[in-house]
Amino acid sequence: MNAPTAPLPPAPLDGLRQRFSGRLLTEDVDTAPFLTDWRKRYTGRALAVAQPDTAADVAAIVRWCAEHRVPLVPQGGNTGMVGGATPDASGSALVLSLARMNRIRDIDTVNNTATVEAGVILANLQQAARDAGRLFPLSLAAEGSCTVGGNLSTNAGGVQVLRYGNTRELCLGLEVVTPAGEVWNGLRGLRKDNTGYDLKDLFIGAEGTLGVITAATMKLYPLPAAQVTALAAVPDPHAALRLLMLAQQRLAASLTAFELISDYCMGLVERHLPANRRPLAEASPYYVLLESSDFESEAHARERFEALLGEAMESGEVTDAAIAGSIAQSRAFWAIREGIPEAQALEGRNIKHDISVPISSIGRFIDETNAAIERDFPGVRLVVFGHLGDGNLHYNVSPAPGVSPEAFLAHESAINHITYEAVAAHRGSISAEHGLGQLKPDENVHYKSPLEIGLMRSIKAALDPQGIMNPGKVLPA
Amino acid sequence: MNAPTAPLPPAPLDGLRQRFSGRLLTEDVDTAPFLTDWRKRYTGRALAVAQPDTAADVAAIVRWCAEHRVPLVPQGGNTGMVGGATPDASGSALVLSLARMNRIRDIDTVNNTATVEAGVILANLQQAARDAGRLFPLSLAAEGSCTVGGNLSTNAGGVQVLRYGNTRELCLGLEVVTPAGEVWNGLRGLRKDNTGYDLKDLFIGAEGTLGVITAATMKLYPLPAAQVTALAAVPDPHAALRLLMLAQQRLAASLTAFELISDYCMGLVERHLPANRRPLAEASPYYVLLESSDFESEAHARERFEALLGEAMESGEVTDAAIAGSIAQSRAFWAIREGIPEAQALEGRNIKHDISVPISSIGRFIDETNAAIERDFPGVRLVVFGHLGDGNLHYNVSPAPGVSPEAFLAHESAINHITYEAVAAHRGSISAEHGLGQLKPDENVHYKSPLEIGLMRSIKAALDPQGIMNPGKVLPA
Repeated sequence: MNAPTAPLPPAPLDGLRQRFSGRLLTEDVDTAPFLTDWRKRYTGRALAVAQPDTAADVAAIVRWCAEHRVPLVPQGGNTGMVGGATPDASGSALVLSLARMNRIRDIDTVNNTATVEAGVILANLQQAARDAGRLFPLSLAAEGSCTVGGNLSTNAGGVQVLRYGNTRELCLGLEVVTPAGEVWNGLRGLRKDNTGYDLKDLFIGAEGTLGVITAATMKLYPLPAAQVTALAAVPDPHAALRLLMLAQQRLAASLTAFELISDYCMGLVERHLPANRRPLAEASPYYVLLESSDFESEAHARERFEALLGEAMESGEVTDAAIAGSIAQSRAFWAIREGIPEAQALEGRNIKHDISVPISSIGRFIDETNAAIERDFPGVRLVVFGHLGDGNLHYNVSPAPGVSPEAFLAHESAINHITYEAVAAHRGSISAEHGLGQLKPDENVHYKSPLEIGLMRSIKAALDPQGIMNPGKVLPA
Repeated sequence: MNAPTAPLPPAPLDGLRQRFSGRLLTEDVDTAPFLTDWRKRYTGRALAVAQPDTAADVAAIVRWCAEHRVPLVPQGGNTGMVGGATPDASGSALVLSLARMNRIRDIDTVNNTATVEAGVILANLQQAARDAGRLFPLSLAAEGSCTVGGNLSTNAGGVQVLRYGNTRELCLGLEVVTPAGEVWNGLRGLRKDNTGYDLKDLFIGAEGTLGVITAATMKLYPLPAAQVTALAAVPDPHAALRLLMLAQQRLAASLTAFELISDYCMGLVERHLPANRRPLAEASPYYVLLESSDFESEAHARERFEALLGEAMESGEVTDAAIAGSIAQSRAFWAIREGIPEAQALEGRNIKHDISVPISSIGRFIDETNAAIERDFPGVRLVVFGHLGDGNLHYNVSPAPGVSPEAFLAHESAINHITYEAVAAHRGSISAEHGLGQLKPDENVHYKSPLEIGLMRSIKAALDPQGIMNPGKVLPA
């Protein structure tokens, strides 16, 4: 084995210190919160954590990094699932926290757009939109602490993608600091614009490897008159799929969520979060949480749900169902769905996946993958839930009763392998909504064609020739 | 002035002739239809027109072009508005017609996707979807002859963008032949996939300058139970905007079209296409065509329209309105809107624009631009119509009565200048849905920042280092 390469001489932080007095953290006690990811899977080191207030600040930092060849790791709310915002252990990188860039620059209720800075917390944007009588539909578990910049950089999904799309579809324009430290003002609020290459969508989902998103113009929508939730018991995922088709035909765009919950997940929530009880008398192998956003009235939403679920019970797709009778009850239904990750964590360590397949494959994917994993690892607990309406499952695996977490986690790569092979067989995705970060770039290279990886590398080299933007994320170092 | 450069020696077509026997056109009589654009604004010359049947064919042609440094001009239905599919006059380029690649490879009614080849005519995809009980929502005037590949390459818009988005939003995956002649199979049918840079959206809207789209996986939707159309008289575009906001709040996603028609446009249609009569007793300065796609019933759609238009008449946004009483009547309303370009052509030559501004600016844009043009060119006819719900106007200008087309068209660049300066002042787009082609690359460079053009050039150089893919389109040669 070779001796480790001598560390680079530390870059002269003095130039930055002057401009960023009080906003350049270098002491361990100050930088620590920025150096470990939310799942506590990765801990890195950093030269410093810089806290810019403006796009011009960001540009100055990027130019400094480019000059000194210092790697830059952008970070929003630090709630990512794949270590995309955590530096490596070398200590050579600068972490760029966008948290102070948290201004809502403009809300235009006629154009139905909000222009916000990258550090705006998602829940704050939702609230600002509501205050203006509009809906910002992106909604996900971390919304109280994740930022719009992070949502864009990971192209976050969440629970209303079925109707409103991923973060990419919600964005009309960006402000980006390029790897050369220039500010691109692409903050357009246009529904149609065919004047060249789609730079916006290239920066979205690039996890900070092509530039730093500093602001965005996001779409707003009218607020629905009522949101009503229903919980339906279904015999299996195939029936859930048939229910989805029927619900889309009957409710069309009013159907804003369609979530699958296995009975094992339901039991986990009831056991660990006992304030949550299933609203149906009998257990069922699977449940579907449906949400309708209605622009007429609550009564109309309920009437449409009753007709839909009645029809589905007659045809056997649904064996039992409850329609929430109040906003409180709707929230209680959602609390079951949203409690699954926490309940699973309370149950113990587990192996997580964030996969998608064509919606038409989801029943077969669950059947085949469950069987393959149970064959090789008898007794494991399959924690199957997710955004069925988008073909996106959080297909997680917990140890068999009595098996220690350590013994179980030793099988992580074998269980990943079974899962990802099944995903590949159905032409699915090994990262539906979380991105690649530092967790999955190698896996991604394995499953994508060399041609596609080569195209990605060409683009990376063209836009970031020095390779300073979040190195090792998305593409292997 | 320098002497013209000597022409390149003609590339040896023999290699291609062998593989493409009968599908390589070289005689003028055969190639002519491919060498003039639909608006007859451009006529080019070509080495040959190749007609591949498969992606492998396309790859072979691209490799041949790369080897011999022959520029390649992809062409679909040849219905583009900006000369994007027409070669230059040098005769050095090969035109690649995708028309024979017209297979519908797969329709998946559970995943709601159709995988089709680039040469499929849009109307054929619409019909195939309908035959499967699904809606493919892209709809535009050229749908009987334009192709899906052309729609993707220009990111076509049309009349239902308000609800379903541009072609980009309707596409989940692509098959592309790269400038090196390799076939990238990105035909994924996934609603969520965050595994790297968004190559799909880079090829979409690139007008064949980064690669050749050979197939695509497109989204399908449930078929509405009923589509009902209404025509409302409004005093001015500002009132039309207020009606739009109200209609979006009341009808939400059921509102699938919202088109503005000026009274001058209405008169043009009545004069030149006399089968079409306005369905309202009194003339009004402007009209709005609204379409509702309802998933309950025709009666429900009509009832919602009546409530909406009643409310808008009470508040003064609408002065009169008619709701189509039958499918035939709905078609008659649409025929007025769709007849405008033909009626305008029958009236004589005119200057066309395809612009967009933020929706909230559209009233001011019309006021200001009308005033500026009328000031400099008294008596011209402003032909104002378009997709108001998307902020997209076909803001056209016809000569003053008695002015010859030649005298009028001499002012084209001055009138373009006034229009585009107004667009720029509102941070709009000089090409909302038609693309840049060879008509607007220079104008685009004028209105975009050098940084943005530089980013576009970097991407072009990275993916097409030889510059053989549709040179001179999108970016100036």
